[in-house]
Amino acid sequence: MDSTHAVTDRLAEFIVDSRWQDIPQSVRREAIRSILNFVGCALGGSQDEAVGLAAGVLTPYFGPAQAGVFGRRERPDALHAAFLNAVSANVLEYDDTHLPTVMHPAAPIAPGLFALAEQRRVSGSELLHAFILGVEAACRIGEAVMPIHYRRGWHITASCGIFGAAAAAGKLLGLDRRQMLWALGHAATQSAGLVESLGSMSKSIGVGNAARNGLAAALFAEAGFTGAEQPIEGRYGFAPVTSDSIGYDSITGKLGESWEILANAYKPYPCGVVLFPVIDACLELRRRLPSAEQIAQVVVRGHPLMRERADRPSVETGREAKVSIQHSVAVALLDGAAGLAQYADRRVADPAVRALRAKVAVEEDAGVPVESAIVILRLADGSSFTEHVREGRGTPGRPMRDDELDDKVRELAAFGAPFVDAPVLIAAIRSIEEERDAGRIVGLTVPAPR
Amino acid sequence: MDSTHAVTDRLAEFIVDSRWQDIPQSVRREAIRSILNFVGCALGGSQDEAVGLAAGVLTPYFGPAQAGVFGRRERPDALHAAFLNAVSANVLEYDDTHLPTVMHPAAPIAPGLFALAEQRRVSGSELLHAFILGVEAACRIGEAVMPIHYRRGWHITASCGIFGAAAAAGKLLGLDRRQMLWALGHAATQSAGLVESLGSMSKSIGVGNAARNGLAAALFAEAGFTGAEQPIEGRYGFAPVTSDSIGYDSITGKLGESWEILANAYKPYPCGVVLFPVIDACLELRRRLPSAEQIAQVVVRGHPLMRERADRPSVETGREAKVSIQHSVAVALLDGAAGLAQYADRRVADPAVRALRAKVAVEEDAGVPVESAIVILRLADGSSFTEHVREGRGTPGRPMRDDELDDKVRELAAFGAPFVDAPVLIAAIRSIEEERDAGRIVGLTVPAPR
Repeated sequence: MDSTHAVTDRLAEFIVDSRWQDIPQSVRREAIRSILNFVGCALGGSQDEAVGLAAGVLTPYFGPAQAGVFGRRERPDALHAAFLNAVSANVLEYDDTHLPTVMHPAAPIAPGLFALAEQRRVSGSELLHAFILGVEAACRIGEAVMPIHYRRGWHITASCGIFGAAAAAGKLLGLDRRQMLWALGHAATQSAGLVESLGSMSKSIGVGNAARNGLAAALFAEAGFTGAEQPIEGRYGFAPVTSDSIGYDSITGKLGESWEILANAYKPYPCGVVLFPVIDACLELRRRLPSAEQIAQVVVRGHPLMRERADRPSVETGREAKVSIQHSVAVALLDGAAGLAQYADRRVADPAVRALRAKVAVEEDAGVPVESAIVILRLADGSSFTEHVREGRGTPGRPMRDDELDDKVRELAAFGAPFVDAPVLIAAIRSIEEERDAGRIVGLTVPAPR
Repeated sequence: MDSTHAVTDRLAEFIVDSRWQDIPQSVRREAIRSILNFVGCALGGSQDEAVGLAAGVLTPYFGPAQAGVFGRRERPDALHAAFLNAVSANVLEYDDTHLPTVMHPAAPIAPGLFALAEQRRVSGSELLHAFILGVEAACRIGEAVMPIHYRRGWHITASCGIFGAAAAAGKLLGLDRRQMLWALGHAATQSAGLVESLGSMSKSIGVGNAARNGLAAALFAEAGFTGAEQPIEGRYGFAPVTSDSIGYDSITGKLGESWEILANAYKPYPCGVVLFPVIDACLELRRRLPSAEQIAQVVVRGHPLMRERADRPSVETGREAKVSIQHSVAVALLDGAAGLAQYADRRVADPAVRALRAKVAVEEDAGVPVESAIVILRLADGSSFTEHVREGRGTPGRPMRDDELDDKVRELAAFGAPFVDAPVLIAAIRSIEEERDAGRIVGLTVPAPR
């Protein structure tokens, strides 16, 4: 069979035919970790300025109170809830990363499922199953059009995330194969999101729309709203329109055998991925440091890409600090942490942090792999310590452990929604496979009614 | 100044600074004609299956009753009203055509304005002014990225219409220059719509979203939701991402001197534009035809493009009939009309129409210009009549007259919303410049409360 024939239809068939018992344990486990990370990020981001502004703009247009917004009081209709939760989950840039595509799949895909779970009775395993299939659809389609798709300027989390949102919602709604094909078509014709929007709040509109419009795509298809027959592979379909190096085998090959969610990673720190080994090294060095005043110089030696991306001695805002080696080194050595508080604007402006940033020197060394870093701490008394981290936490070879992920979720909840009982929430998500009413999880994250 | 510098900002500045007294009379007059054609098309399409399905899908998510839907009972929030009215206005493919881009500007641009006009007091001239500027933005951006944009597979009515919707709504909201820039940026990152979706209901989602999301773009910007600084011309901006032959002068050249709406045309018949001169010729020949039974043969001679696009002797559905020379000839000669009734599925299946379609021969002649047609009617008695139409009605050289446009609106209202008092509605729109409450016009089109 021609590899470009009925690509979307074959993906639709796979999603529709997939049974829960076909999903391997390792895949289920990773899906739970992704959902846990997603809920944590949504809580952490829930009080962000962009989320507050978006909620304010949209409140006059809210429909009936159908679904909660993680960490917030609003209770809008399901479509608006999906939008706002996707914005929250992505806004701190602390969400999951599908490594082969550098897409953040959970933010666009999970919100529609939680919104549906509050309207119709959905079990935890049904939600998990739909989420796994949504990630599968989004990431496979993303792989098919990468790397040209992103290089041209498409923000893949939005532009491909919408396919996952449609597929996942469609699975929960029980669409048949033809409806699932239409849902993917409605996703294709709504696919949007420009890299140019990154760095402004506008990025959040793309991510929110991916969740909202993907859910709408499935609802339209459920009602019999017809779509294209070849929305991805057709002559004017999504793939040829947004890329020119297309590998359809990424979509249709090994369906049910290889699982995209196993390539999902979670950030240990809310900053650029090249900084992870540097921070790991500094946290280790801090144990041997008598006091921060004694630091004479810190030398960071890394791959040229690290210097290119993150050699920023002078930073003014948290946003800039997230891609600054100097700032990350300073807070890790001073605070013994590199969490949300360390990348807040206030911490960036602190004189002690500023002083230490000035003592950090960056040296590039093509012999150091990009996932590694060497940090040399020189003290005023002439002594020095060196720490060599071969692979940072949160990278493929050193995935976040379950307890580390739990810590992260606790930190995020404390940051954005301190009223949440984080241990109860974490336990509920970890046992989601036994949950009969997945919508209950949202309820664990919203403030008590006034 | 570099022609690629601050393109979006200059467009934003023009829109924000434009005053009603700067708009020439001819431009105002054409805007009224566009609005009239838009409202007629929205009424004609209001009972279409796609509109009914969309309204049914979205009703559970409707917010407060803020805005009417032309020709229908629903009264949703402004965002949903914008979506549904855009779908209605475009679904019959009878809406306006901006000739240089082949975009249908009114369907995405006007709905947000009428929705706002029902929420905040907006005068007729304010609405008209905003509409003119929205058309200006959408069509200029469209021209800048054409022809590659459409050729790649972007459905320009949706993908560029959204800029017009954002600009127009932003003008009504009184955005400042920076907010207008952000609104255009929020439009850019939501721009979507694939040519692949044409031919299915999915196309309507793109057109509806352009109206809805364009309005939302302006509302977000009004609230201070920040956007990209160069959303169109930036390295990963809309223009380079969706085209590779970009003429920014189309956006920034002769602003305030040349007006895009003057290139807007209105279809006299709800079918493909190449058929217009053929139908004109047949309507003329019918006057000399003693009776349809006497027709032995009809020969249509036209440009090769006409044959390529519309030589379809066997058609089954109204959709196919809209691009069939044979069907258009048959109904024009039998009915003396080529309106919505003539392209209904029922008329397509009629045995008399079927029989006459079989007698139509199409001959291509490269010597006949594409806007012309020659039709030769041969009767059973051996006599024959020839009609040569040099330019069809509704083409640039023979624009629809005001009375023809009024007839069209009456036909559309009778087709989709027979309870509407069309003469009153037409008079209200023709005098919209004196209207103090533009929202009143929507009220003239909805059924009385039960």
